[in-house]
Amino acid sequence: MSPEEDRQRWRLDLGYDGTAFSGWASQAGRRTVQGELESWLARVLGSEPPRMVCAGRTDAGVHARGQVAHLDLDPATIPDAAATVRRLNRVLPDDLVVWRLASAPAGFDARFSALWRRYVYRLAARSTPVHPLYRNQVTTLRHDLDLDRMNAAAAGLVGLRDFGAFCRRREGGTTIRTLLDLRAVRVAAGPLRDVVECTVRADAFCHSMVRALVGALVAVGSGRRDAGWLQTVAAAAVRDPAIPVLVPGGLTLEEVGYPADTELAERARQARSLRSAAGA
Amino acid sequence: MSPEEDRQRWRLDLGYDGTAFSGWASQAGRRTVQGELESWLARVLGSEPPRMVCAGRTDAGVHARGQVAHLDLDPATIPDAAATVRRLNRVLPDDLVVWRLASAPAGFDARFSALWRRYVYRLAARSTPVHPLYRNQVTTLRHDLDLDRMNAAAAGLVGLRDFGAFCRRREGGTTIRTLLDLRAVRVAAGPLRDVVECTVRADAFCHSMVRALVGALVAVGSGRRDAGWLQTVAAAAVRDPAIPVLVPGGLTLEEVGYPADTELAERARQARSLRSAAGA
Repeated sequence: MSPEEDRQRWRLDLGYDGTAFSGWASQAGRRTVQGELESWLARVLGSEPPRMVCAGRTDAGVHARGQVAHLDLDPATIPDAAATVRRLNRVLPDDLVVWRLASAPAGFDARFSALWRRYVYRLAARSTPVHPLYRNQVTTLRHDLDLDRMNAAAAGLVGLRDFGAFCRRREGGTTIRTLLDLRAVRVAAGPLRDVVECTVRADAFCHSMVRALVGALVAVGSGRRDAGWLQTVAAAAVRDPAIPVLVPGGLTLEEVGYPADTELAERARQARSLRSAAGA
Repeated sequence: MSPEEDRQRWRLDLGYDGTAFSGWASQAGRRTVQGELESWLARVLGSEPPRMVCAGRTDAGVHARGQVAHLDLDPATIPDAAATVRRLNRVLPDDLVVWRLASAPAGFDARFSALWRRYVYRLAARSTPVHPLYRNQVTTLRHDLDLDRMNAAAAGLVGLRDFGAFCRRREGGTTIRTLLDLRAVRVAAGPLRDVVECTVRADAFCHSMVRALVGALVAVGSGRRDAGWLQTVAAAAVRDPAIPVLVPGGLTLEEVGYPADTELAERARQARSLRSAAGA
């Protein structure tokens, strides 16, 4: 995984409208963020398609504002990173944007150096519809939400625990995660005013975990379920079909947190051994 | 134009993503905001399609957040306006939303009672690209903008004058308008951070006027033209092909201003006689 001796590691910060992508990860015959990025980078740099590794492998239809990726290249390939970003943004499809390209500090790994990922799931309640210009990033409900109920229930899920009830099980994978934040806030001003933003921040996520967590909170917030139900289903170690998984369009990967440069390599070593111990 | 004796006038507040509409006004064989609204209202109310009059007849591709319209109906047609809004929002296409439906005060005319219309044209400069989720409402430039230059030039255009240089001429129509605001501001926070918002507010607009005004400011802000050029072309009474008309996607009708209820009828009388004196 470490860059070869003669290669420079680059950090790429990017965003996308996930609506027309089959998610981040390359798949034969599918339009993916990784696939588009790697092929356009190759064209702009006049190189072989570089292999990119990202911090959050978003599902089909999920958006990103602060996705982070790394790639390893011959140092001579990018003499002027700002110019490369401008050239990329001129040719990339209009649902994909590059914010920044910079040589990465020693030990940086977009996936394993990350301390946390922050996602936001956006909801419009029945009584406060969202403007149609935002319909691709906000899921409209057919009912209203009680945010106090949602936040009271959410508080019980924060911390280090087994999130198996919210995860699509993978053979040999662990579903133990540290949930750092789970809360619902109504946006007070701006173009998304009255939209309910559910923030979900954790050290890492397993598959469908964010959308199942928010789905469970929505069940509570709409009055269909109560906090006791959430505690009961959350205690189960396996996926519970009573927990609704919300549609992907409301979800955006907002930000990825990294430690100080001096901690990057140690954090990557820890995270890598945690994941491989779990056989993932 | 006044409602018939046995009819109730309603005010409808609405918004739309203009991308897939051929503008507001009904046209045979085209998908328009007016056409969609009138036919869905008829279905929801079980009535003949009502005729709607709006405050700002937006062009194809132009969005609206605060469009206002009126329609006249038998008072028994809408027993519960809030329920009608909910039913409408369930069936309307997803690029169209109704915010509110309320019986209009006496003398209200969505078009002629209006004191002003406020539009915002949104621009992304080359060095600060916009997130792809906002590409339908923000026009991306291939250069940066000097806002001080734009605002200095803009100040010279505010007031009562002939805007013929910025208007597509219509037979018998006047191009004299009162421009109340023209300024460019960089958004400081939120999802549209760094986007340049050009606010254009006037008592009324002639065709293409907003996009030509902002196009002229962009020519100044990019350094291609100077404030002296703007003064010269603005002084001409007819459309100047040197003034670029920006694409519609960056433009949104944000808000329509009306006087106090007691002034509505008088304002409508004044505006109607102004427009008919001009033969429009």
